[in-house]
Formats: sequence, C-alpha cells, structure tokens
Amino acid sequence: MRRLLEQVASGSLGAAVALERLRHLPFEDLGFAKVDQHRALRRGVPEVIFGEGKSAAQIAAIGARVVASGANLVITRLEPKKARELRRRLRAVIYHPEARLGVIVKRRPTPRGHGIVLVMSAGTSDLAVAEEAALCAELFGNAIERLYDVGVAGIHRLTANLERVQAAAVLIVAAGMEGALPSVVAGMTDKPVIAVPTSVGYGTAFGGVAALLGMLNSCASGVTVVNIDNGFALINRVGIARAGIAGERP
Amino acid sequence: MRRLLEQVASGSLGAAVALERLRHLPFEDLGFAKVDQHRALRRGVPEVIFGEGKSAAQIAAIGARVVASGANLVITRLEPKKARELRRRLRAVIYHPEARLGVIVKRRPTPRGHGIVLVMSAGTSDLAVAEEAALCAELFGNAIERLYDVGVAGIHRLTANLERVQAAAVLIVAAGMEGALPSVVAGMTDKPVIAVPTSVGYGTAFGGVAALLGMLNSCASGVTVVNIDNGFALINRVGIARAGIAGERP
Amino acid sequence: MRRLLEQVASGSLGAAVALERLRHLPFEDLGFAKVDQHRALRRGVPEVIFGEGKSAAQIAAIGARVVASGANLVITRLEPKKARELRRRLRAVIYHPEARLGVIVKRRPTPRGHGIVLVMSAGTSDLAVAEEAALCAELFGNAIERLYDVGVAGIHRLTANLERVQAAAVLIVAAGMEGALPSVVAGMTDKPVIAVPTSVGYGTAFGGVAALLGMLNSCASGVTVVNIDNGFALINRVGIARAGIAGERP
Amino acid sequence: MRRLLEQVASGSLGAAVALERLRHLPFEDLGFAKVDQHRALRRGVPEVIFGEGKSAAQIAAIGARVVASGANLVITRLEPKKARELRRRLRAVIYHPEARLGVIVKRRPTPRGHGIVLVMSAGTSDLAVAEEAALCAELFGNAIERLYDVGVAGIHRLTANLERVQAAAVLIVAAGMEGALPSVVAGMTDKPVIAVPTSVGYGTAFGGVAALLGMLNSCASGVTVVNIDNGFALINRVGIARAGIAGERP
Amino acid sequence: MRRLLEQVASGSLGAAVALERLRHLPFEDLGFAKVDQHRALRRGVPEVIFGEGKSAAQIAAIGARVVASGANLVITRLEPKKARELRRRLRAVIYHPEARLGVIVKRRPTPRGHGIVLVMSAGTSDLAVAEEAALCAELFGNAIERLYDVGVAGIHRLTANLERVQAAAVLIVAAGMEGALPSVVAGMTDKPVIAVPTSVGYGTAFGGVAALLGMLNSCASGVTVVNIDNGFALINRVGIARAGIAGERP
Amino acid sequence: MRRLLEQVASGSLGAAVALERLRHLPFEDLGFAKVDQHRALRRGVPEVIFGEGKSAAQIAAIGARVVASGANLVITRLEPKKARELRRRLRAVIYHPEARLGVIVKRRPTPRGHGIVLVMSAGTSDLAVAEEAALCAELFGNAIERLYDVGVAGIHRLTANLERVQAAAVLIVAAGMEGALPSVVAGMTDKPVIAVPTSVGYGTAFGGVAALLGMLNSCASGVTVVNIDNGFALINRVGIARAGIAGERP
Amino acid sequence: MRRLLEQVASGSLGAAVALERLRHLPFEDLGFAKVDQHRALRRGVPEVIFGEGKSAAQIAAIGARVVASGANLVITRLEPKKARELRRRLRAVIYHPEARLGVIVKRRPTPRGHGIVLVMSAGTSDLAVAEEAALCAELFGNAIERLYDVGVAGIHRLTANLERVQAAAVLIVAAGMEGALPSVVAGMTDKPVIAVPTSVGYGTAFGGVAALLGMLNSCASGVTVVNIDNGFALINRVGIARAGIAGERP
Amino acid sequence: MRRLLEQVASGSLGAAVALERLRHLPFEDLGFAKVDQHRALRRGVPEVIFGEGKSAAQIAAIGARVVASGANLVITRLEPKKARELRRRLRAVIYHPEARLGVIVKRRPTPRGHGIVLVMSAGTSDLAVAEEAALCAELFGNAIERLYDVGVAGIHRLTANLERVQAAAVLIVAAGMEGALPSVVAGMTDKPVIAVPTSVGYGTAFGGVAALLGMLNSCASGVTVVNIDNGFALINRVGIARAGIAGERP
Repeated sequence: MRRLLEQVASGSLGAAVALERLRHLPFEDLGFAKVDQHRALRRGVPEVIFGEGKSAAQIAAIGARVVASGANLVITRLEPKKARELRRRLRAVIYHPEARLGVIVKRRPTPRGHGIVLVMSAGTSDLAVAEEAALCAELFGNAIERLYDVGVAGIHRLTANLERVQAAAVLIVAAGMEGALPSVVAGMTDKPVIAVPTSVGYGTAFGGVAALLGMLNSCASGVTVVNIDNGFALINRVGIARAGIAGERP
Repeated sequence: MRRLLEQVASGSLGAAVALERLRHLPFEDLGFAKVDQHRALRRGVPEVIFGEGKSAAQIAAIGARVVASGANLVITRLEPKKARELRRRLRAVIYHPEARLGVIVKRRPTPRGHGIVLVMSAGTSDLAVAEEAALCAELFGNAIERLYDVGVAGIHRLTANLERVQAAAVLIVAAGMEGALPSVVAGMTDKPVIAVPTSVGYGTAFGGVAALLGMLNSCASGVTVVNIDNGFALINRVGIARAGIAGERP
Repeated sequence: MRRLLEQVASGSLGAAVALERLRHLPFEDLGFAKVDQHRALRRGVPEVIFGEGKSAAQIAAIGARVVASGANLVITRLEPKKARELRRRLRAVIYHPEARLGVIVKRRPTPRGHGIVLVMSAGTSDLAVAEEAALCAELFGNAIERLYDVGVAGIHRLTANLERVQAAAVLIVAAGMEGALPSVVAGMTDKPVIAVPTSVGYGTAFGGVAALLGMLNSCASGVTVVNIDNGFALINRVGIARAGIAGERP
Repeated sequence: MRRLLEQVASGSLGAAVALERLRHLPFEDLGFAKVDQHRALRRGVPEVIFGEGKSAAQIAAIGARVVASGANLVITRLEPKKARELRRRLRAVIYHPEARLGVIVKRRPTPRGHGIVLVMSAGTSDLAVAEEAALCAELFGNAIERLYDVGVAGIHRLTANLERVQAAAVLIVAAGMEGALPSVVAGMTDKPVIAVPTSVGYGTAFGGVAALLGMLNSCASGVTVVNIDNGFALINRVGIARAGIAGERP
Repeated sequence: MRRLLEQVASGSLGAAVALERLRHLPFEDLGFAKVDQHRALRRGVPEVIFGEGKSAAQIAAIGARVVASGANLVITRLEPKKARELRRRLRAVIYHPEARLGVIVKRRPTPRGHGIVLVMSAGTSDLAVAEEAALCAELFGNAIERLYDVGVAGIHRLTANLERVQAAAVLIVAAGMEGALPSVVAGMTDKPVIAVPTSVGYGTAFGGVAALLGMLNSCASGVTVVNIDNGFALINRVGIARAGIAGERP
Repeated sequence: MRRLLEQVASGSLGAAVALERLRHLPFEDLGFAKVDQHRALRRGVPEVIFGEGKSAAQIAAIGARVVASGANLVITRLEPKKARELRRRLRAVIYHPEARLGVIVKRRPTPRGHGIVLVMSAGTSDLAVAEEAALCAELFGNAIERLYDVGVAGIHRLTANLERVQAAAVLIVAAGMEGALPSVVAGMTDKPVIAVPTSVGYGTAFGGVAALLGMLNSCASGVTVVNIDNGFALINRVGIARAGIAGERP
Repeated sequence: MRRLLEQVASGSLGAAVALERLRHLPFEDLGFAKVDQHRALRRGVPEVIFGEGKSAAQIAAIGARVVASGANLVITRLEPKKARELRRRLRAVIYHPEARLGVIVKRRPTPRGHGIVLVMSAGTSDLAVAEEAALCAELFGNAIERLYDVGVAGIHRLTANLERVQAAAVLIVAAGMEGALPSVVAGMTDKPVIAVPTSVGYGTAFGGVAALLGMLNSCASGVTVVNIDNGFALINRVGIARAGIAGERP
Repeated sequence: MRRLLEQVASGSLGAAVALERLRHLPFEDLGFAKVDQHRALRRGVPEVIFGEGKSAAQIAAIGARVVASGANLVITRLEPKKARELRRRLRAVIYHPEARLGVIVKRRPTPRGHGIVLVMSAGTSDLAVAEEAALCAELFGNAIERLYDVGVAGIHRLTANLERVQAAAVLIVAAGMEGALPSVVAGMTDKPVIAVPTSVGYGTAFGGVAALLGMLNSCASGVTVVNIDNGFALINRVGIARAGIAGERP
C-alpha cells in the first residue's frame, strides 16, 4: 500500500487508478492470491511472474513478497540487462540466460520418478524457447531430458535418438521455420506431443506463423499446439500432467 | 490385388499407378501395417479410416480387412448418405450421425477407471466436433462425460457445473465463434485443457480462424490447441494419455 | 498566422502549403471550429487534441487557443517525455500517466447522476486503454466506476463483482490476447457493452487482431466494437449516450 | 422428451447425445430458460431463434413452445423456402422476406416515445441486413425510421436528409463495399452510430472485410461496429438502450 | 476461321471479338505457334492444352490441329466426364484418370537414360498432383520412378527407401497439410528437390497455403517451390533439366 | 567510372559487381538513359531520383550529372537530415520539407492552361503524400490547386468547396484511415479521380491497407488507385494526362 | 408505384419497406435520377444497370423506363441465361456474351476522333473483363482498339505490337495470375495505363489478389489500378477522360 | 569443450544447456559433422555459416575450425560492422559487402566449363540478394555471369540481352516489388528459371510477399521459387545441378 502511495506521489500512477487498486486490494490479499500461495507451498509449485514489460523494481517488489511466503519463484521473459539489475535488488535470483528465466528455489520439488518429459528443439535458434519450457517443467517436479538441434533436414540425427524419443512419457517439441519436427516425432512415438512454434526464420516464416500452421496441420495425430514462442504457457499443466501420471491426488 | 486389376480394367486407375501400388504392396502387408494391426489387437486400440474423400466401396474394402483381423474400426467424417451405402456393404457398422462416425466394436475396450475425460462444447452447433472427439476417446477405453451448450454468454451454465469441471482428469473443449470457452474452463481447473476450434460462426469468424486465435492467445495457461474442426486428431493420444494416467506399461 | 510565417521562415513549412493554409484560415476561424468551441462552452464538452505525431510546441499552441476560449481540454496519446515538455509551456496541464492523457479542466462537468459507466479491463496490461476511456468519459460528465484485472482466466473475480456489473448503465470493456471478457460480461447484463480490443499479447495476438476478432464474433448479443487500442474514440458519444439516459434535450 | 426419443428411434440422434440431453433437460426447463420466458413476458421482449442451419421442423417445435408461453417470437435468417414450410407448421408466423425474418407478435410492444432509431443503408443491396435490424428493433418497442440508398457516392441524397439524421436518437448504418457511410453520418450528428458492415461487393470487398475495416478506422469518433451482416446481434441491446432513454426501471 | 464465324452466328461470340481474332490470326498461324509446332516435332516435346475452363469441343478442335501436325499432345486438368466427351470427338486420346491428363503420343520420346526423376507424394490424396507431374515428365523423355505415400508421420517408410531417394537425379515432392516431406527428403540427398504444395487438408491448411509456407521455409537448402497443385507447370523445364543432364545440345 | 573504382578501393563495392557495372556502362550512356535526357530537355520533363535508400553522396553524384545535362531534377523521399547534407554538395537544390522533395528547376515548365489538377487530402496527416503529388505534378507543367483537411467526418468542409471540386479537370485525393474521401469526391464530379491511400492510422488501419481496400471498393465509378503513400508514382502520367488535355502532339 | 404494390401483394416485398420506398419516390423521380437522365440525353452517355443479383424482370422494368426516356442503356454482369430471359421482355437488348453486357443504343455516340483507347489482355481468360471495359468505353463515344493475348510469357507478341501500344492515347490492361502485363506496357509508352486485375488463376492467385498486388507495386510509374474483375467501373470516367482529350466543354 | 566451460563460467550459457551440449558433442564430432567436412574437402564444396544472429566471436570460432580442416568457408548475412570485427579475429576472411558474404577460399573450385549460370536482378536494390546467389554459386565451381538492373519497366534493356539470356544453362532471377521479371525471362528461354523474391518495395509490397505471389503465379511454365531474400538457400543445389550438367559422378 505504501508502494502505491509512493507511485502516486512520484506521478507514475494516477490517483484514480490508485483508488481502484485500493478497492481491489483486500480481495487480492484475502481471496484468490492467498489461496494460490497456500497451494504453492503445499505442492511445491512455484509462483510465476511474467517479466516482459515490468521494470526490475516491480519484479523485485512482487518477487520479494512471493519469496517471503516461502514459495519458489520463476520470472519468465527476463532479459540479461534487467536480470543484472534485478539481482542487485533480489540477490537470491539465479539467472538462466539461454531460457531468459530468473529462478529462486526455496524448496526443491521432489522428483516424482514416473517417466521423462523430453524437450526437443529443431535448431539451436529455438533453444531459448525450448529451455524456457524445460526449466519450468523441471521446477514443477518433472524429470526432464533435452534433445536439441535434431531438425528434419538431417533426419539421421533424429533416428539415431529413436530410443530416447520412444522412452519419453511426454514430448515438448520447439521448432521454427517450417515447423516439421513435431510431425516426424509424433510418428515415432504414441505419447502426447506438445508443439511449440518459434519465431525463428525470415521472409515467409512470418514470425512463426509458418511453423504454427505446419504444426496445426500435422499429418500425425495427437499433436497439440500452443502460441508462438510460448514456452512458459505450459508451466502449470505439464507439471500437473506429470503429477497425474504419478497417480497423485489433486 | 484383384481389386487393383479391376480398377485398371474399369479405367478408374491408370496402369502406372497400379504398378507403383503393386511394388508398394509387400511393404504394407508385411511391414508397418501388420504391426499396427497386431498392436491394435493387443491393446484394443481401434483402426481409424478417414472417411472424407473415399467412396463407400473403398471404405468397405479397407474396413473388411481391418475387421477380419479382429481389430475395432472407426470411420471418421462419414456423411449420412455414404453411411447408408456403407451399411449395405458392411452390415456391422453402427453409425453415429451427430459425430459423423461409423464404428465396429469387436472387443469392447476395458474401461481403465482412472478418471474422467470431460468433453465440453460452447454451443449446440459445435456438437458434431465434440461428439467425434467424445466417441473416439470412448473407443480407446476412456471414461467419458459430456457437458454441452455451456458457452460463455451464459456463464451461470458453466459455474453451475463447476464440480463436474473440477472432477475431470482431462478436458476437451470445442467452441466456435470467439472460442472463449477453453480460457474460462482452464481458469476453473488445473487439469490439461485441449481446445478444439470449430468452424461455427459467420462473417469475421473466418471458418474457425477467430476461434483458433482466441484459443492460441488464451490468457489461461495450459491450453493446447488442435486444427479447426479436428475432433478425430485426438484419437490416439487422448487414449494414451488416459492410459498413462492408469500407470499402464506401454 | 505569424506562427505560419515563422514556420515558413524556419524552413519547416513550404510556401505552397502555407499559402493553402492561409486560404483555409478564415473558414476555420469563423466557421466550423468556432461553432465547436461554442458548443463546448455551452455543454461543458472538452476539446480534444490527438497528441501522437504532434510536437509539444504544436500541442501547446493549439491548447493555449482552446484554453483561452474557456473550454476544457483533453490531449490523448501523450507520452511522459512529451508531457513534461508540454507542462513547461502550458503549466495548467494535469498529466495522467496511466492513461497517457493531458487535461485542463476549466469548468468541472456537472455529474448527471443517471447511472454508472463501468470501465472494465481483463488484465493490468490493458489499463492504459481502459484509463483513457474512463478519464475521457468522466470529463464528459459521466459517473465512472472502474473494475480492472477481471479477465476470464479467473472467472471468480468477475462473478464476485456480479452486482457491480449488473448495476452499470453502460459497460466499456478493454481486453487484449483472446478478448473474451466482453462476451462473458455481456452474458451477465442486459445493458450495452462496448468492447475495446487492446494490442496486448504476443505471437498470434497479431497486435490486437485476435482480440478484435474475438469481440466481433462474441456469442453474446449486443456487443459493439471499436478499433484496436481505441480508448479515446468513444469520447463524444459515450458522453452523449449518458446524456440521453438522463433525458436531456439535445 | 418424446421428440428426443423419436429422434433416437429414427436414427437422427445417437444414444449418447440423447442421454446427455436428458441430463441437461431439468436445468433448461426449471432454470435459465424459464427465467428468460418470464422476463420476455414481463417486458414484451421477444424470444429469438437463429434460423440458419435449423430445419423448418426444428424451428416450428421450438417456436410452438415459445408461443405457448405467451411471448413474442422472432426467427432470424429465415430463407423464403424454409419460411413457406414453416408457415405450414406454425400458421401464425408472418414472414418479412426482405429482412429474412419470421415473426409472431402476441403482445404488441408499447412504443416508448422517446426518440427515433434511424436505420440507414448505403445501397439497396444492404437492405436485407438493414431491414433485419429495423424490424428487430421495432419488435423491442422502439420507434423506427428508415433512410435507405443514401450511399456516399451521391452525397446530396444524404445532405438532403440532414434533418432526419440529426433528429434521430440512435443511428444504425448498414453499408457494404467501402463502408464509408457511417463515417459521414457520424460527422453529421452527435448521437451514437452503430455501423453494420455487409458482405455486399466483390473482389477486394472480401465478403465484408473492406467495409468492416473502413468502419473500424472511421475518422469520425463514436462509431462502434458489429460483425459482418450482423443485423440481428443488436436485437436486445438497442431495445434496452432505447429503454434506458425512456428512464424505465430494469 | 469458319469456326469463328459459326460462333458469331450462334451468338456465343460477339462481332467485335471475332474481328479482333481475325486480325490476330495470321500472327498466330505464321508466327509464334507454328514455330512451337516445329520445335515440338523436332524435339518430341508434346504440345500442352490447359483443359480447365475449356469445353470438350474446344479441346477437341485445338487438339485435332496439334495431332495433325504430328506432335504429341497433353491435355491437363481434364475431368472424367469431359474426358469421356472428348474421346467421342478425338478417339486417340488416352485418359489417365488419377492424373487428370489426356494424352496422344504420336512419337514415343526416346528415353535419354541419364538418371531418374523420382516423383514422391506424402499421402495418397496428393496422388493426382504427383501423377500429373510424373506423366508429364515422362512424356518429355525422362525416366520416371514413383514413391508414394511416404509422409513424415511414418518416417520409417521414407528411410526404408533411402537408396531410391539417393539414386535419383531430380526429386519432385508433392505434399499437402503441413508440407514437411520436401524438407526431410532434401536432407537425405544433395540433388535438386522441387516441392509441389497440394491443396490437401482442411481448416488451417487454407487450401495449400500451410504446405506452401512450410516448403518456402524449408530448413534444408536447395528446395524450390511452385504454385499450389501445380503439377503441370513443370512440364517443359523438368524435361529440359533432364535434357541438360544428358548433355544434349539445345 | 572513377567513382566506381573509388568505391572498389574503399571496399564499399566488390570487384565482381564493379566489373558487371563496367560492362553495363556503355549501354546506359549511349542507349536508354541518354534518350531519356534528350526527352527531358525537349519536353521540360524533370528527371526523378528515388531518394530513399541512397546516400546524400550518391544522390549528389547522380543529380550533378542530370543538372549538367540541362534537365530539371526531382529527388523524392528525401528526409530533412539527408537534404541538409545534400545541399552542402549540390547547392542548387531547393528542399520542400512537407513533401520530402528536393528540386532543381533549370527551365520552368510552361503552364499549359487547360484546367486545374486539384490535390486533396482527408486529414493534415496525409499532407506529406499529397504535397509530394502536388509538387511533382506542378513540375510537369500542370496548374495545381490544393484542398486539404476536408475528410468525410465533417462533410460540410467538402460541400462548402463543391465549386472548386467540380471546376477541377483531374482530382488526386490522398486519404488514410478508412480512405472514404475519394468515394465522396467522385460522387461530386464526373472527372477522373486518382486515389492515393496513405499509411495514416493505427490498429486495423494496417499501415494503409484499410484505406486501400476502401478505395478499391469505392461505390463511385471511375476511381483508380495507386500503391500506399505513393505520391510520386503519378509524376510522369499525370503530367502527360494534362498534356493530353492541352491537345499537345506526342 | 403499381409495381411496388404488386410486389407487396405477391409477398416479395414487406409493407414497411414499401412504405419507405414510397416516401423516397418523389425524391428519386423529381430530383437526382431525372437530372441523370437529362444529362444522359444531352451527352449521349448511357445509363448503366448492374445486372448481378437482379432478376431479369427487375432489369427489364428499370431498363424499360430508361429506354422510354430516350437514353442509351448498358446492363453489366449479365449472364447468358438471364440475358435470354431479358430479351423476351425487352426485345431491343443486344447481348455481348463475351463481355456479359446487354446494350440498347438509341443514339449512337458520336466518335470524337481524338486518339485511341487500347484495351489489352494478358490471356484469353481475361477476355470477359477486357471486353466489358472495351464495349463500355465504346458506348461512351471513344475509338477503341483491342490487343488480346499478349501476356509477358511471350514477350515477342508484345514487342511485335509496339507501334500500336505507343499510338494509343489511353491503355486499359486486364491481366490475371501474376498481373505483370501493365508494368511492361507502362514501360513502353508514356500514356496513362489503367490496370484491371482479373480473378484468373488458381492456388496462390487468391482470386485476383496476386495480380492486384503486382499492379499496385508496378515498377513502372503511372499505373493506376481498379478493383478485381472491375471492367465496368471505368465506364463514366474513361469516356470523360477521352472527352477531355477532345477539349470538350463540360 | 573449453569454450563451453568458459561460456558457463562467464554466465552466457546455463549449466543445463552445457550438459546437454556435452552429451551431444561426440555425435557431432565423430558423426555427421565430420562426414560433412570430409565431403567438403573431397569435392571442394565450401562449408557455410549463417552469420545473422551470431556474434563475430562465435563465427570466428566455428570458422577457424572449418578452415583448419582445409575446407573453403562462406559466411552469409554478414553485416559490414560485424565483418570488420570478424576480420580482426580471422584475418583470411575476404568480405564482399554488396553480397554480405565473408569468404575464405583455400582451394579454388575447378570451373567445370559446362555452361553459364546467369544471375539477373530487376533493380539495383535487388543487388544484395543477387550477389549473394552469384558469389555462392561461383564458390561451388560454376561459371557465373551477371545481368543486373533489367527490370520489366524498360523491356528493351532485357530484349537487348536476349542472346545472353538464351545462352545461359540456368537462370537465377532476383526481383522485388511486383516480381515480374522471372515470368518474362522464362518466356525467353527454355532453361530452368529459379526466382528469388526480394523484400524491395514499400506499402503493398508487404516485404516481398507481392513479388513472391507474382512469381508463384508466373504465367510462364518452369519457374520455381524460393523464400524471400533467400539468395543463399541455393548454395548447394545450384552447384550440384551444375555438377549434374557436367556429368560428374556423385
């Protein structure tokens, strides 16, 4: 609340909005948000802050509150420069540059031991998105393996890893350009394949649209798709799907 | 093979293509396809024929071979008129008009009993796609429940079913027009939500594109999406996901 | 006119254009614009300057003329840096950073007391657009309430505010990403809902197009839509709609 | 319920769907739908059936139930041939061919007398959509006037009607092709303008998209837009907006 | 010329157009077209008629002239019904239904014996386009092999044919849906790959656009692309490319 | 040629390209370009340099050559900073900032006196494009009038200028946003209207696409359209059209 | 008026619309339309009826009124079957099948003799659109020449006609597919080129969009463009442009 | 490997990714990559590094390894500033600024002497893409000729070079804007034409989409197309196609 008033004082927040936020505050504190934090503590599920478009100061403020509650913390879409600034304010943050993630792990999630989530990427340029998905899934207590740079232009790289592909319980496949990898992978396994189109490419790649269309039209059944470059959208549910595999009571 | 020669004789197939098919035949008979049928028998997983663009005669011919092998059979995208014609040739087919599916069940799949796949639809017009998904999932041994006509314009219809939504292990949500239902549902549960955009709507619905975009941009995490009107693409994997939940060994 | 000649002298305006403007001037002075100012004074309706693409000097010049006439003034799309520069030239301007609005209120508009215009937003990122709409509507003499961050992914935040939603006379709903909020809101009230798509989102949000399509295809009747991020387009008419509700003689 | 069983018997409905509908029935009968009918009776608001994609038999069945409850009935998107078939089953239906509407008025809505809803069209080809909007608004108790074929290519037709335009309390403007009429109309009045893009045009009209974009980008403030060819979406809210003007208690 | 006058007489051709055609005639007869026929005779290259949008009578008339000159003839996009009608007028036509081609071969093109053009298709639905390409290339004197139904969802079907793929001198690859096959094939060979997107698919396949984008963005270098469903556009040049391989003097 | 060698020396041009240019040079000097300069001198038609993407040095070099030949010179798309730099190298250049044009007039084109080319703009933001068209047309010897800021949202500004509109021989109309002005103007005159869509607008203006579509779908006959922001494309032909009006012998 | 009442009686027109039309009638009779007819008579300019979407009966009714007034008549987009039906009702109509035009010429327009309008087409499939433009321009008193089937794939056909191209005063160029012809033509002449994209093509031709984009991006200056397949939109203005060339007083 | 550890130490690479890369390393060193280098040495085919998005340090590290192996090296998409930095680290690099290529040639490829690859461009702005294609093809041992700035707006520039066009064995044609050049060129030769759309243009050029569509819809047969601005994708295959022409054993 003081932060709110300070923002009003500094002119970075108008009075009307501040008023509205005050009205909203009790609801957030006592209702939905608290429950979320309780759930996080009980299950070791981290709280997630979407870092893009927030200042390091804002992230630090929210993050400190989360950490104080004892929950784990994940900050997504965190650029290196902002990460450095954030670490000056919140020293416990560990930064994973290739995934653009900041992380504070207070309680290591207990690995559930019921199979592997295999995170794959077509090219090295898709690594940021793949790593974002991999690290997040890991923080939710899944056993993760990585298989990168196995794009379809060199199919032998993929077939040489057939056993690892077939051993996985769930497969997350990031690919840009023509986005063909999930189709091929889905043809090699009968496990669920989640395709993540990336904005890698140029010209008619249209910022990931070509990859997205390729994945939606996959000739292999069972491929489901998320938004372009959306490694973090899977955070909660992949974890939960894995939990489900473990037979855990929700 | 005789059928092939007959087609050549009747002029509905050129000689070159027939030749190619002959060359291909042993591969299909002894290799991939047979394994598939074995797998189907061993696991009770039905064989699937995509009915659109095939004649009743073609479907009957392929279907007879599948049935002879002892496997269950599903024919998708089967229009009523073609279904009637098919039943004259393959009497065991049971037709589900609202799902446009033809089915022959030789061995009932054993229900695995590990939770519900809840199939939801926003409007009654989305029913064909939703039923296609529901019936297919059922044939793969999943326990299915349906919750139809719970679109977001009457949110009380949805909140009145909150318990059923939260009790489900996996949720398949079909919606056309603005495609908002999966977002709302995903906010009510922490289980995986698979969104199926339908081509229902007019004007700027653009044949399902508006719904697809709505689902890809879902503000709720964990929503994955398939192609427009694509109820049948989920056949194998939803079944397998359910199997996974049951802890079955692949 | 001297400003015109100065611009020609400084080379920032060509002679031909200056000539054209001179020819145009009497029309502007004695015709249309004057009537507008009269109307503004008579009704307390503020004059509006679209701030984007104009320099602080240009805004100050136009603004000074408006203020001199006794009318209220609103400057839309005013970035913080330009606002600071403007305040050095036109000290009476009060800046609302979250709405990107600069305002000079000479005569407070008399609240008409005939019901609430409820301005809603799906996420905190939609706040700039929502605040722009809210402040403008307020300056036109409407009683405004705000209900922010009630996106459909947490539907309980919305149902918890059902009474406020149903008590409103008109609802302005800003949402980005999948733009589903107006559909849900329109299902909870029988009052007019004006949907404002925002450019919030990434990937297939396509800068607000996904939200726009979602709103145009709303399954709830009675939703009308404006251009992306267009909070200020509603300025005149929402005021007048409210006036209409009050039974005022036009 | 008997109809349901008959459908199952005739094979036009699968058993699973029938089961689901049965489960749904009490909810519909005792809950939401009944309230709607009560509301309709109390306020004279007609029940609306979307006619496209429903058979005459289906429309007749639903319509008979509505009429039995005493409410007024509107059937939208009703093609002439289907209308003739419907009238054989539900003789009270009056058909408006130019609006593709079927109507049964049990209780004439009391005109409220608080100003005119002016329905305008750019060309004669936009008439179907305009008439749909006009007749619906009328059935909700609004005083309607029509001003057709006043497209911007002959601007004198519009300026010759300036008084009628300025006398209206709300303006609904249907236009296809370049969709410029709402912009011009909104510049002639300070009342709310609702723009309805129609699919009239060819080539780059793209089935109404050009008109839609034209309306969304209207240079005149206060224009709100609905989906292409969407005359009926306005049914409830225009009525209610008018009610609001009358100061009626909801 | 008599045909022209008859058309005018029957009213199927206006006088002005007839006049224009007359003026044009000598040019066509003595100039460009004749040279073309000479070239065809000299090199065994067939004349090609685009069959879509022409009546059987028109095709027969043009075809008779070609055949009279001694050249081979190919009619593309010839639907079965029109083919039957054509054969009544031009009995020498042999119809290839799966490629929608009509053919009259007066002089068998001498096989050049310098390597194989391998025509591949992803699915059986892409067969029409693939066959069109294969038959045309054959008529230009190339040695053709076919490899059909080797889509990427069952990658073992493709790797099992690795030797045939690598033995080919040029590869023409037809694929619909996500269009991934050319990328994989191009990664298995260092020979030129010409990708032909087909309109096979539904929903977001957008009539072949998804496949086209997938091919243009192929992660494997050396893939060039033609228009959707454009099997016949390759007619001349594939022949000539083959000729080039043979070291023939042009 | 020395410049070429200097570029090679400085490393800003590769040897291969230089070689190619040398081979090309005689053709340019003796063939096409010379004729062009002759034509320019003979008819007073200026030479045009597209300034965007060229350095001030490059423009100065080409421009000096043109001026030396005695022809008039127009440089389009010349940004202020580059203009200042250019004037240091080529002092005779007169810069028109609002049209982004640099001009050297060696021989004033004789006004032909056969009617007015009226250049109109919808808003002040469309001025750059309109001025570009106006100045260019003037340099080709046309009598130009300007009528700016007469967008359709205030139709009285347009009707107040009806006489000027109807007195013009040709009308060039620049408009952004919904691009409706050309439709209205074309309805007020029976002279040719050339519509120039501008990229003015935001959101669904899509950088001028909405205006372009509006113009292509103009309900008034006789509107022809050019590319977005393309004021200079009209340079030659508007001049020539005017010449035609004057009855000049080509 | 009797026709109106008859339509009401027959049920093909609703009472409300009839009422509206009655109110509109005096305006049409005494105002705008009459002036139009006067103008047509005075200048020999034909009245134009857009035939698409009107019944033969409707066209006959309107046409009879026009003919009675003494003006010439053009009916555009008139399909053969409707033309036959129309000729039974309005025997004076002469039908031009290749242009889909029906024509009644009461007073031959006096040829003005000031140069040729050359109508060109890229392929024979573009003929319908080209003929529509040619015949209409002719009916407005222009001297027309035709140059068909001179697409850029056989550039010698075009260069062989260089003199005719350069002799023309105005050039109308219809082309589908890639729409390249206008660019090449505009490079061969310094006269105005009006490009008409046609919907000829398939796949990525997107119903004329590819041709339209090609024309808008023409590398030759001075090309202006109209809507796809829009041969008739040029009717009035090409005629008037020609008139202008003749020096006629408006 | 040391580099990897250094990256981890410096924080520019996360530990998890480093681990993954280590696991991957033996595969790369002993398997695929080595073979590639062997192949390169054996055939004189250069190794290619895609320079965009890699730092000069990264390029230098990879490049040094390639050069050490004795193979030739090509770095594509190398901006001038990065090239300067690269040359400080890898002095043997020769930079071709107009093609944005860096090259190290250890073994000059033996010219095969079997005909010319003619690289053409429509305008000077397409030069970067054309040069990229030309230089790459040259490094693969092809005899290259260039023919630049021969766009269709001045068709005489092209016809004046007819002999060079017809003498070429393969033609690579780069063009932006309307992309018409490949259509015209393909009509002048019977050799394969590879069209490269460039992003040159503005407004509706849509960054190369207009050119791409123009090329895909080429009215001349035998045109194949690659991605926008994709000069380097042709590297391997054009070389190999040329090799094929030479009759070389693969």
